[in-house]
Amino acid sequence: MTKTRIAVDMDEVIADALTAMRSWARSAYQREWTDDEMAGRSMGELLGKDGLAALHAHMHEGEFFRHLPVIDGAQAALRALAADHEIFITTAAMEFPLSLKFKREWLDEHFDFLNPLNFVFCGDKSIINADFLIDDHARHFRRFVGQGILFDGHHNVQVNDFPRLKHWRDAESLIENLKRR
Amino acid sequence: MTKTRIAVDMDEVIADALTAMRSWARSAYQREWTDDEMAGRSMGELLGKDGLAALHAHMHEGEFFRHLPVIDGAQAALRALAADHEIFITTAAMEFPLSLKFKREWLDEHFDFLNPLNFVFCGDKSIINADFLIDDHARHFRRFVGQGILFDGHHNVQVNDFPRLKHWRDAESLIENLKRR
Repeated sequence: MTKTRIAVDMDEVIADALTAMRSWARSAYQREWTDDEMAGRSMGELLGKDGLAALHAHMHEGEFFRHLPVIDGAQAALRALAADHEIFITTAAMEFPLSLKFKREWLDEHFDFLNPLNFVFCGDKSIINADFLIDDHARHFRRFVGQGILFDGHHNVQVNDFPRLKHWRDAESLIENLKRR
Repeated sequence: MTKTRIAVDMDEVIADALTAMRSWARSAYQREWTDDEMAGRSMGELLGKDGLAALHAHMHEGEFFRHLPVIDGAQAALRALAADHEIFITTAAMEFPLSLKFKREWLDEHFDFLNPLNFVFCGDKSIINADFLIDDHARHFRRFVGQGILFDGHHNVQVNDFPRLKHWRDAESLIENLKRR
Protein backbone atom coordinates (compact mmCIF):
# COMPACT_ATOMS: atom_id res chain seq x y z
CA MET A 1 0.00 0.00 0.00
CA THR A 2 1.34 3.43 -0.79
CA LYS A 3 1.68 5.85 2.08
CA THR A 4 -0.61 8.83 2.42
CA ARG A 5 1.23 11.89 1.17
CA ILE A 6 1.02 15.18 3.03
CA ALA A 7 2.26 18.41 1.46
CA VAL A 8 3.06 21.18 3.94
CA ASP A 9 3.46 24.90 3.24
CA MET A 10 6.26 26.88 4.94
CA ASP A 11 5.34 30.50 5.67
CA GLU A 12 2.84 30.84 8.51
CA VAL A 13 2.50 27.04 8.67
CA ILE A 14 5.91 25.82 9.84
CA ALA A 15 7.87 29.11 9.57
CA ASP A 16 6.61 32.05 11.58
CA ALA A 17 6.76 34.80 8.97
CA LEU A 18 4.07 36.76 10.80
CA THR A 19 6.17 37.38 13.90
CA ALA A 20 9.00 38.54 11.63
CA MET A 21 6.63 40.87 9.71
CA ARG A 22 5.30 42.31 12.94
CA SER A 23 8.77 43.08 14.21
CA TRP A 24 9.67 44.59 10.81
CA ALA A 25 6.55 46.85 11.00
CA ARG A 26 7.52 47.82 14.54
CA SER A 27 11.01 48.93 13.56
CA ALA A 28 10.17 50.42 10.12
CA TYR A 29 6.83 52.09 10.94
CA GLN A 30 6.53 52.04 14.72
CA ARG A 31 3.30 50.13 14.04
CA GLU A 32 2.04 47.61 16.54
CA TRP A 33 -1.16 45.59 16.07
CA THR A 34 -3.15 43.61 18.59
CA ASP A 35 -4.35 40.15 17.55
CA ASP A 36 -7.88 41.58 17.35
CA GLU A 37 -6.77 44.30 14.93
CA MET A 38 -5.12 41.69 12.73
CA ALA A 39 -8.02 39.22 12.62
CA GLY A 40 -9.30 38.77 9.07
CA ARG A 41 -6.98 41.43 7.66
CA SER A 42 -4.21 40.87 5.13
CA MET A 43 -0.80 42.56 5.39
CA GLY A 44 -1.90 44.89 2.56
CA GLU A 45 -4.89 46.05 4.59
CA LEU A 46 -2.78 46.47 7.71
CA LEU A 47 0.16 48.28 6.11
CA GLY A 48 -1.44 50.12 3.19
CA LYS A 49 -0.10 50.08 -0.33
CA ASP A 50 3.23 51.81 0.31
CA GLY A 51 3.85 49.84 3.48
CA LEU A 52 3.20 46.56 1.71
CA ALA A 53 5.58 47.55 -1.10
CA ALA A 54 8.28 48.33 1.47
CA LEU A 55 7.69 44.98 3.21
CA HIS A 56 7.91 43.14 -0.11
CA ALA A 57 11.12 44.99 -1.01
CA HIS A 58 12.56 43.78 2.31
CA MET A 59 11.37 40.22 1.64
CA HIS A 60 12.77 40.29 -1.92
CA GLU A 61 16.27 40.53 -0.47
CA GLY A 62 15.63 36.97 0.69
CA GLU A 63 17.42 36.85 4.03
CA PHE A 64 14.11 37.59 5.77
CA PHE A 65 13.32 33.89 5.28
CA ARG A 66 16.53 32.63 6.92
CA HIS A 67 15.80 33.76 10.46
CA LEU A 68 12.13 32.94 10.96
CA PRO A 69 11.09 31.24 14.20
CA VAL A 70 9.63 27.75 13.87
CA ILE A 71 5.86 27.56 14.39
CA ASP A 72 5.04 26.00 17.75
CA GLY A 73 4.68 22.23 17.54
CA ALA A 74 5.59 21.90 13.85
CA GLN A 75 8.78 19.91 14.35
CA ALA A 76 7.25 17.36 16.75
CA ALA A 77 4.13 16.94 14.60
CA LEU A 78 6.01 16.43 11.32
CA ARG A 79 8.48 14.09 12.97
CA ALA A 80 5.55 11.97 14.22
CA LEU A 81 3.64 12.13 10.92
CA ALA A 82 6.77 11.21 8.94
CA ALA A 83 6.74 7.73 10.52
CA ASP A 84 3.60 6.70 8.62
CA HIS A 85 3.24 9.30 5.86
CA GLU A 86 5.25 10.80 3.04
CA ILE A 87 5.92 14.43 3.99
CA PHE A 88 6.71 17.02 1.31
CA ILE A 89 7.42 20.69 2.00
CA THR A 90 5.73 22.73 -0.75
CA THR A 91 6.41 26.45 -0.64
CA ALA A 92 5.56 29.24 -3.06
CA ALA A 93 9.11 30.57 -3.31
CA MET A 94 9.09 31.82 -6.91
CA GLU A 95 7.64 35.22 -5.96
CA PHE A 96 10.86 35.90 -4.03
CA PRO A 97 13.66 34.28 -6.06
CA LEU A 98 16.39 35.32 -3.64
CA SER A 99 14.56 33.48 -0.88
CA LEU A 100 15.31 30.08 -2.49
CA LYS A 101 18.75 29.66 -0.92
CA PHE A 102 17.62 30.93 2.48
CA LYS A 103 14.50 28.75 2.57
CA ARG A 104 16.60 25.70 1.82
CA GLU A 105 19.09 26.62 4.59
CA TRP A 106 16.22 27.16 7.02
CA LEU A 107 14.74 23.74 6.24
CA ASP A 108 18.16 22.08 6.56
CA GLU A 109 18.54 23.66 9.99
CA HIS A 110 15.08 23.12 11.47
CA PHE A 111 13.74 20.07 9.60
CA ASP A 112 16.89 18.02 9.11
CA PHE A 113 14.86 14.83 9.70
CA LEU A 114 13.02 15.36 6.39
CA ASN A 115 14.42 14.25 3.04
CA PRO A 116 15.60 17.30 1.01
CA LEU A 117 14.43 15.48 -2.13
CA ASN A 118 10.93 16.10 -0.73
CA PHE A 119 11.35 19.89 -0.70
CA VAL A 120 9.40 21.64 -3.46
CA PHE A 121 9.88 25.30 -4.30
CA CYS A 122 7.09 26.36 -6.61
CA GLY A 123 4.50 29.02 -7.37
CA ASP A 124 1.18 27.59 -8.51
CA LYS A 125 0.48 24.70 -6.11
CA SER A 126 -1.95 22.95 -8.45
CA ILE A 127 1.23 21.20 -9.68
CA ILE A 128 1.41 19.31 -6.35
CA ASN A 129 0.35 15.65 -6.37
CA ALA A 130 -0.53 14.81 -2.76
CA ASP A 131 -3.43 13.54 -0.66
CA PHE A 132 -3.41 16.52 1.71
CA LEU A 133 -2.06 20.06 1.52
CA ILE A 134 -1.69 21.96 4.79
CA ASP A 135 -1.59 25.65 3.87
CA ASP A 136 -2.72 28.98 5.31
CA HIS A 137 -4.01 30.25 1.93
CA ALA A 138 -7.21 28.62 0.68
CA ARG A 139 -6.53 29.88 -2.86
CA HIS A 140 -4.00 27.04 -3.20
CA PHE A 141 -6.81 24.48 -2.66
CA ARG A 142 -8.89 25.63 -5.65
CA ARG A 143 -7.16 23.44 -8.25
CA PHE A 144 -5.40 21.07 -5.82
CA VAL A 145 -6.03 17.35 -6.52
CA GLY A 146 -6.26 16.34 -2.85
CA GLN A 147 -7.89 17.65 0.32
CA GLY A 148 -6.90 21.09 1.54
CA ILE A 149 -6.38 21.65 5.27
CA LEU A 150 -6.38 25.30 6.29
CA PHE A 151 -3.70 26.16 8.82
CA ASP A 152 -5.15 28.73 11.18
CA GLY A 153 -3.93 32.27 10.66
CA HIS A 154 -5.07 35.83 11.42
CA HIS A 155 -5.77 36.46 7.73
CA ASN A 156 -7.99 33.40 7.19
CA VAL A 157 -10.32 33.49 10.21
CA GLN A 158 -13.31 34.12 7.93
CA VAL A 159 -12.65 31.16 5.63
CA ASN A 160 -15.01 28.28 6.45
CA ASP A 161 -14.81 25.94 3.45
CA PHE A 162 -12.00 23.67 4.63
CA PRO A 163 -11.04 21.64 7.67
CA ARG A 164 -9.02 23.93 9.91
CA LEU A 165 -5.84 23.00 11.76
CA LYS A 166 -5.69 25.29 14.80
CA HIS A 167 -2.42 23.95 16.22
CA TRP A 168 0.12 21.37 15.11
CA ARG A 169 -0.68 19.22 18.16
CA ASP A 170 -4.02 18.37 16.48
CA ALA A 171 -2.51 17.37 13.12
CA GLU A 172 -2.36 13.60 13.57
CA SER A 173 -5.94 13.25 14.82
CA LEU A 174 -7.32 15.62 12.14
CA ILE A 175 -5.59 13.68 9.36
CA GLU A 176 -6.73 10.33 10.74
CA ASN A 177 -10.31 11.65 10.83
CA LEU A 178 -10.08 12.96 7.27
CA LYS A 179 -8.64 9.66 6.03
CA ARG A 180 -11.69 7.83 7.44
CA ARG A 181 -14.14 10.02 5.52
CA MET B 1 -12.14 22.22 -20.44
CA THR B 2 -8.89 22.27 -18.58
CA LYS B 3 -5.72 22.51 -20.62
CA THR B 4 -3.34 19.60 -20.94
CA ARG B 5 -0.45 20.16 -18.58
CA ILE B 6 3.11 19.42 -19.67
CA ALA B 7 5.95 19.32 -17.14
CA VAL B 8 9.42 19.81 -18.61
CA ASP B 9 12.77 18.97 -17.03
CA MET B 10 15.72 21.38 -17.37
CA ASP B 11 19.11 19.65 -17.53
CA GLU B 12 19.70 17.83 -20.83
CA VAL B 13 16.13 18.66 -21.90
CA ILE B 14 16.07 22.45 -22.28
CA ALA B 15 19.49 23.26 -20.74
CA ASP B 16 22.53 21.69 -22.35
CA ALA B 17 24.38 20.47 -19.26
CA LEU B 18 26.14 17.81 -21.31
CA THR B 19 28.07 20.27 -23.46
CA ALA B 20 29.13 22.07 -20.27
CA MET B 21 30.21 18.78 -18.66
CA ARG B 22 32.20 17.82 -21.73
CA SER B 23 34.05 21.11 -21.75
CA TRP B 24 34.68 20.77 -17.99
CA ALA B 25 36.15 17.26 -18.58
CA ARG B 26 38.27 18.66 -21.39
CA SER B 27 39.82 21.40 -19.23
CA ALA B 28 40.02 19.43 -15.93
CA TYR B 29 41.09 16.02 -17.29
CA GLN B 30 42.06 16.55 -20.92
CA ARG B 31 39.37 13.97 -21.63
CA GLU B 32 37.45 14.05 -24.88
CA TRP B 33 34.73 11.57 -25.80
CA THR B 34 33.17 10.81 -29.14
CA ASP B 35 29.38 10.44 -29.29
CA ASP B 36 29.91 6.69 -29.79
CA GLU B 37 31.99 6.42 -26.63
CA MET B 38 29.27 8.24 -24.68
CA ALA B 39 26.31 6.21 -25.94
CA GLY B 40 24.60 4.35 -23.08
CA ARG B 41 27.18 5.47 -20.53
CA SER B 42 26.55 7.66 -17.50
CA MET B 43 28.94 10.41 -16.39
CA GLY B 44 30.06 8.10 -13.58
CA GLU B 45 31.06 5.43 -16.06
CA LEU B 46 32.81 7.98 -18.26
CA LEU B 47 34.68 9.84 -15.53
CA GLY B 48 35.22 7.16 -12.88
CA LYS B 49 34.45 7.64 -9.20
CA ASP B 50 36.97 10.41 -8.46
CA GLY B 51 36.19 12.25 -11.68
CA LEU B 52 32.48 12.18 -10.94
CA ALA B 53 33.13 13.49 -7.41
CA ALA B 54 35.17 16.36 -8.87
CA LEU B 55 32.42 17.16 -11.38
CA HIS B 56 29.80 17.16 -8.62
CA ALA B 57 31.97 19.42 -6.46
CA HIS B 58 32.12 21.84 -9.40
CA MET B 59 28.34 21.60 -9.90
CA HIS B 60 27.70 22.10 -6.16
CA GLU B 61 29.11 25.60 -6.46
CA GLY B 62 25.98 26.31 -8.49
CA GLU B 63 27.21 28.74 -11.14
CA PHE B 64 27.68 25.82 -13.55
CA PHE B 65 23.91 26.03 -14.13
CA ARG B 66 23.89 29.75 -15.01
CA HIS B 67 25.82 29.52 -18.28
CA LEU B 68 24.39 26.44 -19.98
CA PRO B 69 23.51 26.68 -23.67
CA VAL B 70 19.82 26.24 -24.55
CA ILE B 71 18.99 22.88 -26.17
CA ASP B 72 18.32 23.31 -29.87
CA GLY B 73 14.64 24.02 -30.60
CA ALA B 74 13.48 24.15 -26.96
CA GLN B 75 12.46 27.80 -26.97
CA ALA B 76 10.45 27.62 -30.18
CA ALA B 77 8.74 24.37 -29.16
CA LEU B 78 7.75 25.54 -25.69
CA ARG B 79 6.57 28.88 -27.04
CA ALA B 80 4.31 27.03 -29.50
CA LEU B 81 3.10 24.48 -26.93
CA ALA B 82 2.35 27.23 -24.39
CA ALA B 83 -0.43 28.54 -26.64
CA ASP B 84 -2.64 25.51 -25.97
CA HIS B 85 -1.08 23.81 -22.95
CA GLU B 86 -0.04 24.63 -19.42
CA ILE B 87 3.77 24.43 -19.31
CA PHE B 88 5.58 23.84 -16.03
CA ILE B 89 9.35 23.59 -15.66
CA THR B 90 10.11 20.84 -13.13
CA THR B 91 13.75 20.42 -12.23
CA ALA B 92 15.48 18.30 -9.61
CA ALA B 93 17.40 21.17 -8.04
CA MET B 94 17.54 19.99 -4.42
CA GLU B 95 20.67 17.88 -4.99
CA PHE B 96 22.57 21.12 -5.72
CA PRO B 97 21.09 23.73 -3.36
CA LEU B 98 23.36 26.53 -4.60
CA SER B 99 22.02 25.95 -8.11
CA LEU B 100 18.56 27.26 -7.14
CA LYS B 101 19.37 30.94 -7.72
CA PHE B 102 21.29 30.27 -10.93
CA LYS B 103 18.60 28.01 -12.39
CA ARG B 104 15.99 30.68 -11.75
CA GLU B 105 18.18 33.35 -13.42
CA TRP B 106 18.76 31.05 -16.40
CA LEU B 107 15.03 30.48 -16.84
CA ASP B 108 14.31 34.21 -16.53
CA GLU B 109 16.85 34.87 -19.28
CA HIS B 110 16.02 32.13 -21.76
CA PHE B 111 12.35 31.33 -21.06
CA ASP B 112 10.98 34.74 -20.15
CA PHE B 113 7.75 33.90 -21.98
CA LEU B 114 6.88 31.30 -19.32
CA ASN B 115 5.20 32.19 -16.02
CA PRO B 116 7.71 31.97 -13.14
CA LEU B 117 4.86 30.72 -10.93
CA ASN B 118 5.07 27.58 -13.12
CA PHE B 119 8.71 26.90 -12.19
CA VAL B 120 9.10 23.98 -9.79
CA PHE B 121 12.40 23.18 -8.08
CA CYS B 122 12.09 19.77 -6.47
CA GLY B 123 13.81 16.43 -5.93
CA ASP B 124 11.41 13.49 -6.13
CA LYS B 125 9.25 14.19 -9.20
CA SER B 126 6.41 11.91 -8.10
CA ILE B 127 5.14 15.10 -6.44
CA ILE B 128 4.37 16.56 -9.91
CA ASN B 129 0.72 16.60 -10.99
CA ALA B 130 0.76 16.81 -14.79
CA ASP B 131 -0.45 14.94 -17.86
CA PHE B 132 3.01 14.62 -19.40
CA LEU B 133 6.56 14.81 -18.08
CA ILE B 134 9.35 15.35 -20.60
CA ASP B 135 12.54 14.18 -18.90
CA ASP B 136 15.80 12.49 -19.84
CA HIS B 137 15.75 10.18 -16.79
CA ALA B 138 13.17 7.38 -16.91
CA ARG B 139 13.48 6.88 -13.13
CA HIS B 140 11.29 9.97 -12.72
CA PHE B 141 8.43 8.22 -14.57
CA ARG B 142 8.21 5.30 -12.14
CA ARG B 143 5.80 6.96 -9.68
CA PHE B 144 4.66 9.81 -11.97
CA VAL B 145 0.85 10.13 -12.31
CA GLY B 146 0.92 11.02 -16.02
CA GLN B 147 2.68 9.83 -19.16
CA GLY B 148 6.47 10.03 -19.25
CA ILE B 149 8.17 11.17 -22.46
CA LEU B 150 11.87 10.34 -22.61
CA PHE B 151 13.99 13.15 -24.02
CA ASP B 152 16.74 11.59 -26.08
CA GLY B 153 20.16 11.58 -24.48
CA HIS B 154 23.44 9.67 -24.72
CA HIS B 155 22.81 8.03 -21.34
CA ASN B 156 19.31 6.71 -22.15
CA VAL B 157 19.75 5.17 -25.63
CA GLN B 158 19.04 1.70 -24.20
CA VAL B 159 15.75 2.67 -22.53
CA ASN B 160 12.77 1.48 -24.59
CA ASP B 161 9.79 1.69 -22.25
CA PHE B 162 8.63 5.22 -23.04
CA PRO B 163 7.82 7.35 -26.05
CA ARG B 164 11.05 9.07 -27.04
CA LEU B 165 11.40 12.72 -28.07
CA LYS B 166 14.44 12.85 -30.37
CA HIS B 167 14.30 16.59 -31.05
CA TRP B 168 12.14 19.47 -29.83
CA ARG B 169 10.85 20.00 -33.38
CA ASP B 170 8.82 16.77 -32.96
CA ALA B 171 7.27 17.73 -29.62
CA GLU B 172 3.92 19.05 -30.81
CA SER B 173 3.17 16.09 -33.08
CA LEU B 174 4.31 13.53 -30.47
CA ILE B 175 2.09 15.07 -27.79
CA GLU B 176 -0.90 15.28 -30.15
CA ASN B 177 -0.43 11.58 -30.97
CA LEU B 178 -0.18 10.63 -27.29
CA LYS B 179 -3.30 12.65 -26.44
CA ARG B 180 -5.26 10.61 -29.02
CA ARG B 181 -4.28 7.29 -27.44
